[in-house]
Amino acid sequence: MNEMETLLSFIAATLTTVSFIPQAIKVIRTRNTKGISFGMYLILTAGQLLWSVYGIITNQMAIVIANLITFALAIIILIYTYNDLKQNRT
Amino acid sequence: MNEMETLLSFIAATLTTVSFIPQAIKVIRTRNTKGISFGMYLILTAGQLLWSVYGIITNQMAIVIANLITFALAIIILIYTYNDLKQNRT
Repeated sequence: MNEMETLLSFIAATLTTVSFIPQAIKVIRTRNTKGISFGMYLILTAGQLLWSVYGIITNQMAIVIANLITFALAIIILIYTYNDLKQNRT
Repeated sequence: MNEMETLLSFIAATLTTVSFIPQAIKVIRTRNTKGISFGMYLILTAGQLLWSVYGIITNQMAIVIANLITFALAIIILIYTYNDLKQNRT
């Protein structure tokens, strides 16, 4: 992989990873998860977990770190969305 | 890459890609994007676009396809979120 490719993948990985930060902040601040799909974050967190396992067994720490960060952020969003769903059912 | 690693990465990529489908369906059906972060999808779509470019220049079609699918779904969510934001300001 040449330098340009490495830089491109680093920027792409950083963007897709940090993108979950504004969403996590928004649900923590507003407690409003009305428009958010619980299904999305359930499937997404499963995928992120598998990517982390993949990164560990292929010894690619960048994949492990990026996916564990997005996993942690997505879990926050998932929990707030689940609590909202539960409250609306009771 | 051995067979198990290939299978794991395929399942992980499929999960993280299809996870955006329920969110896209939900915003189209409910038109409700209140809890959704516009910032998240703005940054995410930029990252997905860069991953697609990375996949093209490194000739990795799986990365191109997965990211173009999630990009298309995320753009739908971004547009609905943007329209909601605009309407609430007028």
